[in-house]
Amino acid sequence: MSREQREQARGLIEKSELGRTPAQQRADFDEMFAGRPLGEDVTLSPRTLGGRPALDVVVEGADGEGVILYLHGGGYSIGSARTGANLAAPLARSTGVPAVALDYRLAPEDPFPAAVDDALAAYKELLDSGQKVVLAGDSAGGGLALALMLAARRAGLPQPAGAVLYSPWTDVSLSGASVDSRGDFDPLFSRAQMAESAEWYVGGQDPRAELASPLFADLTGLAPLLIQVGSAEVLLDDSLRLAVRAAEAEVDVSLDVVAGAPHVFQYFTGFLPEADEALERAAAFVRRRLSDRLGDQPVG
Amino acid sequence: MSREQREQARGLIEKSELGRTPAQQRADFDEMFAGRPLGEDVTLSPRTLGGRPALDVVVEGADGEGVILYLHGGGYSIGSARTGANLAAPLARSTGVPAVALDYRLAPEDPFPAAVDDALAAYKELLDSGQKVVLAGDSAGGGLALALMLAARRAGLPQPAGAVLYSPWTDVSLSGASVDSRGDFDPLFSRAQMAESAEWYVGGQDPRAELASPLFADLTGLAPLLIQVGSAEVLLDDSLRLAVRAAEAEVDVSLDVVAGAPHVFQYFTGFLPEADEALERAAAFVRRRLSDRLGDQPVG
Repeated sequence: MSREQREQARGLIEKSELGRTPAQQRADFDEMFAGRPLGEDVTLSPRTLGGRPALDVVVEGADGEGVILYLHGGGYSIGSARTGANLAAPLARSTGVPAVALDYRLAPEDPFPAAVDDALAAYKELLDSGQKVVLAGDSAGGGLALALMLAARRAGLPQPAGAVLYSPWTDVSLSGASVDSRGDFDPLFSRAQMAESAEWYVGGQDPRAELASPLFADLTGLAPLLIQVGSAEVLLDDSLRLAVRAAEAEVDVSLDVVAGAPHVFQYFTGFLPEADEALERAAAFVRRRLSDRLGDQPVG
Repeated sequence: MSREQREQARGLIEKSELGRTPAQQRADFDEMFAGRPLGEDVTLSPRTLGGRPALDVVVEGADGEGVILYLHGGGYSIGSARTGANLAAPLARSTGVPAVALDYRLAPEDPFPAAVDDALAAYKELLDSGQKVVLAGDSAGGGLALALMLAARRAGLPQPAGAVLYSPWTDVSLSGASVDSRGDFDPLFSRAQMAESAEWYVGGQDPRAELASPLFADLTGLAPLLIQVGSAEVLLDDSLRLAVRAAEAEVDVSLDVVAGAPHVFQYFTGFLPEADEALERAAAFVRRRLSDRLGDQPVG
């Protein structure tokens, strides 16, 4: 990503959100992201999933087996199924698999573990319908997808076929070195901002609890993970450390680090070649994981 | 990979090679690997490259632009262009790009940096011919590919389009924790064996020299890397640490960790689904990296 592109991204989202209420932050975030055109081939249909509002993200021709459960980003306190659809729709289009984006409860009104409970309830309903489920999420939604996998393991439920994690926030205790070392490069985030979101989310509980900061959990038995992250992100270490811990726990894990790319650069599919390439890899991962489930046949 | 498959792999190569001369080790390695059928669509043609013997690995229909420079494994002391062809041929077939496998000089007769010098001379000759070059290598050949990229940077040469590293040995000082922690799981290697190879290779020089153990080098400016490794390997940490260091140096890097897979599991393409999937990802990487070079056009 060029310096110019980074500056554009910097302009797109103001760095400091401190001092604004959750309601103000949500309104600003929605103004920027909730109206993004998704393409004429996309239909959003409101529904209920696990007792929460959700959106079916249906892309023409994306009628393959399975379903992508998409968990949006926004620091556990902002964003919605609609903003998640910005990332779910390209993934549905590229994979040919329908997606559903969940409106899980947000902090500070509903702190941890409300989001995990909602994600788990949504996952259960999809499982009960007999569908093969792949998880996907960005930022806090990526951390939440990972927490959901742990919660599913704990509940004795089957794992999903896999999970696609875009720039996941896996450590709300903010112990990653890149939180500070990349602060000057990351156009979107600062430690102060993240600390505020984390505080809202954990609400006085232990930020290292494994369903809040799944990075610290024993990851044994988790389904395959695809992690994508930009090297310019304050959240870089949340991905690097996750990849290492997953590998050490014998979890299938693929990691794509894109040089110079900012947080959730997959938002720029259609504009940035790096984003298109990342989407292509994510789509290949989803297709493979769903076909694993179909037959467990050797490929060769 | 199942336990049974691991046992089979364990039987394929005896764990201890200690106490055998380089000549004995080479003979055994060649007996196991140098006669492996490559498929009727493959022609091997001897040639010279950078002053060393090499094999053009030509697969019917693989006549795309560019060339894969393949560097074989074998602890810098055994193996050959012919054993490298076992892995170069499937990559050539999957990418549609011809490969050339190099007989670089081996230790202990020709210790470090002879192999690096040979690889660099070969790379120069390919560059001079006007071809776009992608590097690929397994085990020591993966470490050597990385060292070659550093040597090219040092020599002021352009970087290759990218490098595919199968289970690369990036640290001949053997400082990775998995060298011991995975010793009981790895069917192929032990610390003692690797220490012997490392000793032969460095021949009394500093094992942490950056062209011997490229893990410790500043990786800034290197071309995109694809690293693939099995989670059961003593060399797991050589890959995990490389991915982290590359990311921190703003290098494009993708890492695939395959749960339970042994060293250079890509050898089993056609037999193991994990190997086929890894090959598919490697091929996609090579094609993308070569097309980057062709036009730098946005994909979207």
